[in-house]
Amino acid sequence: MRDEVYLGSRPANCTPLTPLNLLERALTAHPDRKAVIWGERVWTYAALGNIVWALARFLASQGVKAGDVVSLMCPNRPEMLAAHYAVPLLGAVINSVNTRLDRETVAYILSHSESRLMIADPGCRDIAEAAAAVAGVPFVCLASDGSDALSGLALLDAMDPIPPHQWGQVAHEWQPIALNYTSGTTSHPKGVVLHHRGAYLNSLGNVIELGFNRHSIYLWVLPMFHCNGWCHTWAITAAGGVHVCLERVDPAEIFEVIESVGVTHMACAPVVLHMLLNHEARALRDPSRVVTVATGGAAPTSALIAQMDALGFEFIHLYGLTESYGPSTLRILSDAEKSLSITERATLLARQGVQHVTANRVRLVDESNNLVPSDGNTIGEIVLQGNTLMAGYYRDPQATEEAFRNGVFHTGDLAVQHPDGQIEIKDRAKDVIISGGENISSLEVESVLHLHPAVFLAAVVAAPDPKWGEVPYAFIELKPGQSVTSETLRSFCREHLAHFKVPRKFVFLSLPRTATGKIKKFELRNDVTHRAGEEN
Amino acid sequence: MRDEVYLGSRPANCTPLTPLNLLERALTAHPDRKAVIWGERVWTYAALGNIVWALARFLASQGVKAGDVVSLMCPNRPEMLAAHYAVPLLGAVINSVNTRLDRETVAYILSHSESRLMIADPGCRDIAEAAAAVAGVPFVCLASDGSDALSGLALLDAMDPIPPHQWGQVAHEWQPIALNYTSGTTSHPKGVVLHHRGAYLNSLGNVIELGFNRHSIYLWVLPMFHCNGWCHTWAITAAGGVHVCLERVDPAEIFEVIESVGVTHMACAPVVLHMLLNHEARALRDPSRVVTVATGGAAPTSALIAQMDALGFEFIHLYGLTESYGPSTLRILSDAEKSLSITERATLLARQGVQHVTANRVRLVDESNNLVPSDGNTIGEIVLQGNTLMAGYYRDPQATEEAFRNGVFHTGDLAVQHPDGQIEIKDRAKDVIISGGENISSLEVESVLHLHPAVFLAAVVAAPDPKWGEVPYAFIELKPGQSVTSETLRSFCREHLAHFKVPRKFVFLSLPRTATGKIKKFELRNDVTHRAGEEN
Repeated sequence: MRDEVYLGSRPANCTPLTPLNLLERALTAHPDRKAVIWGERVWTYAALGNIVWALARFLASQGVKAGDVVSLMCPNRPEMLAAHYAVPLLGAVINSVNTRLDRETVAYILSHSESRLMIADPGCRDIAEAAAAVAGVPFVCLASDGSDALSGLALLDAMDPIPPHQWGQVAHEWQPIALNYTSGTTSHPKGVVLHHRGAYLNSLGNVIELGFNRHSIYLWVLPMFHCNGWCHTWAITAAGGVHVCLERVDPAEIFEVIESVGVTHMACAPVVLHMLLNHEARALRDPSRVVTVATGGAAPTSALIAQMDALGFEFIHLYGLTESYGPSTLRILSDAEKSLSITERATLLARQGVQHVTANRVRLVDESNNLVPSDGNTIGEIVLQGNTLMAGYYRDPQATEEAFRNGVFHTGDLAVQHPDGQIEIKDRAKDVIISGGENISSLEVESVLHLHPAVFLAAVVAAPDPKWGEVPYAFIELKPGQSVTSETLRSFCREHLAHFKVPRKFVFLSLPRTATGKIKKFELRNDVTHRAGEEN
Repeated sequence: MRDEVYLGSRPANCTPLTPLNLLERALTAHPDRKAVIWGERVWTYAALGNIVWALARFLASQGVKAGDVVSLMCPNRPEMLAAHYAVPLLGAVINSVNTRLDRETVAYILSHSESRLMIADPGCRDIAEAAAAVAGVPFVCLASDGSDALSGLALLDAMDPIPPHQWGQVAHEWQPIALNYTSGTTSHPKGVVLHHRGAYLNSLGNVIELGFNRHSIYLWVLPMFHCNGWCHTWAITAAGGVHVCLERVDPAEIFEVIESVGVTHMACAPVVLHMLLNHEARALRDPSRVVTVATGGAAPTSALIAQMDALGFEFIHLYGLTESYGPSTLRILSDAEKSLSITERATLLARQGVQHVTANRVRLVDESNNLVPSDGNTIGEIVLQGNTLMAGYYRDPQATEEAFRNGVFHTGDLAVQHPDGQIEIKDRAKDVIISGGENISSLEVESVLHLHPAVFLAAVVAAPDPKWGEVPYAFIELKPGQSVTSETLRSFCREHLAHFKVPRKFVFLSLPRTATGKIKKFELRNDVTHRAGEEN
């Protein structure tokens, strides 16, 4: 076939892939359909468009321009959802900050990202404003009562629709849309740069894999600040479903909302499920109407599955990282598998599953980058390759090149692949503890402990926990002649770390070392499993 | 945000969008799931992969290389489905030829496309082989009995899976994947060049819009040679559903298969639905199990909707063109609308609806390219802009530039937009007659009539027809002193045209002309509506 110039791409037939188009399409195709529910209030897609435009105009008035980073510290309010469109509408980059972080970490993120603006919910005001002051970033509080510069109420009642000519600020689909800071292998959080192309594709992939459609009513339990809510901020809009916003993870409220608005889908960490199961409001649940729950970070146990079953919750087990826009594999039970015993289902659901439709390639390789056999036995590292992977780590070329060595993205997670293709994680190569769905860098906790004058060497490892999945345990070798109590170290950590990162337990000992002086974390993990097992 | 080099795209995080990845993913994620049913036989996705690889190796043995055009004239057999992967796997371009076309047209297509190879089903052998001889293109018959060079049986029993390193022959997502010849405004068919990017995105869009999923069982009534089956050749694979192949449009077989394999979806022209309704085998249908039917080309009438309702068929009305990879808008009734009266539903379903999720922009503009108001009254031309539009017309830069003038694709179809955003076609600016789902170029028919010695001037227009949607009527002005019968002209047309293009009726008259000598087709269309109305 002849290659002819006039057959090349042109703006008419090649337009940047961007989640903005998904909202634009909703505004055109079904402006009157329900888009957002928050408490007693309901907004149509047209009204959501109005909120987005009002927020975009406010941001522009604050000097936000294309390429700027806008940071937000906000629970799952409608304005937070709107920010996922308003910020990119200006060509700017959204940086959603975990509302549980401490002031130092938030200040680090604001400085490192060179944010143009910090917007926070009143509930996060203290830490957010203090961090913004440290970083020298202008601060705006999103007040619900109209008392501050940015009135949430005014936004929510906005009436001017986005003019059609304002769509299309995306110059290129590789342009960054989000910057998400994540705890990784180093003590400082790393800034994961996500592009419009990947966000668009992963949103479509989520719609297909999780079965979102125009009948879907999605309950926002998963925080939107977790990797843009795994792209569900955009995917539910693509499907034409309803976003049900929820500011707090409150079991009574969750149960009440599930029934009152007819929730069909939710996503959350297993710890939230434990909270639900142990709350008396579970009596409100009508188990005949199934709610699909996507969960990840810890495998659902058979006990959890049995209890969730009885309440009409159906599991999808997911695996992914911030670097992959959220989940890139999933395990869904087939109809035949759904009739298996609880134990068999738990065995199957413990697996991380197979790749998402838009994830392209998920493979297990050995240290020489060769595929390992799918025998359910040979361990390999999960490596990813495809369109739903980050551009790289912001201002960290070394970590970026390291992560992308050999032409694939290295997750650091070690797994086997079963003969049917299902992947099952066996260990994490990286030193990350996942507690209640939050990543904790053991190095970050260790570096805080090393600041204490009595501590000679600290090693922090994950201990299994039935509720939180994992919790951090700290092993401490004291300086000669020094002594300190667990309580003192706990208080010290609380001063310097977000609360969820503080070690659950402190063990004082002489740390086991290899011949070359490296701490044998493997031994500590065995020890900790033993200790945790005795306690539970 | 700083623009840094190491944040640019790389093969690890930016891979060409291609439908090939959808099969690769199916082979990895669910190799044992049912993929194809054809008569008594069933193939898994792994087995479909084997067929694809065997066909690709055969094509390579025939000298097919990247960039070559491979033409196929074949009904909906598994090998035809496999060709939609095997041809692009070599980096080659699939040209699916309508099995109803006449020898001259097929020869034109083979020559114009500079095909490397022509493969035909035994049922199309005569015309295909003769056309290939005229065009000087090597010919291969796809024999089901193993008697020929390319044995369908050997393919269908192939056992060697595609080696992983053979995936990824796609150098760029803008690379052509298909060349589809379509009747347009000129007498020669135009070669629509489709790229991998658009095919991938439209496949995902189809999955989302038509609700395909792993439970979908899709009956292949729509010919795969119609714009690659509107991308369903790839979309069903993306969803992990089942392709049910059907070689003939035989109502008894359709009804039998729908029940025996539990079909959930099918797509076809309204004429097929009329055939189904009028066939006694409709008694086989279990109306309690709903089958979704996507149809286009003619609006379903209230009589048709009522009868289809009773048989458990639910409509989706679609609109699109070969240039847009098949449908780019669709009208689906909401749950509330489904309970409206038949007449009201027919009114709503007569509309072409709103844009597909991946269609980006579908708009109505006036002659100065300004948007027309959405008042249900003002007529504008439907123009498209987005990622699911052709690269252009092969070897026709002029038609390509004309179609893409002003930065949008001009469909030539005139419509109104209702206040709720729904588009409704009122007239076609282009001279195309859509009969039984096939496009007929009135110019092509006219140019054949002009070859007859008695004809001075011919004008062919669409007449409404309850079964076929439209049929061509020919208005003939004879040369002075000449005479000819309808029967003679009919025979003459049959010699030079595919049967479905032969005018239903010949009317002899002095053609009405404008002051500048242009034929007033508008008057003829009124006349023909009147005539057709009297007959029906």
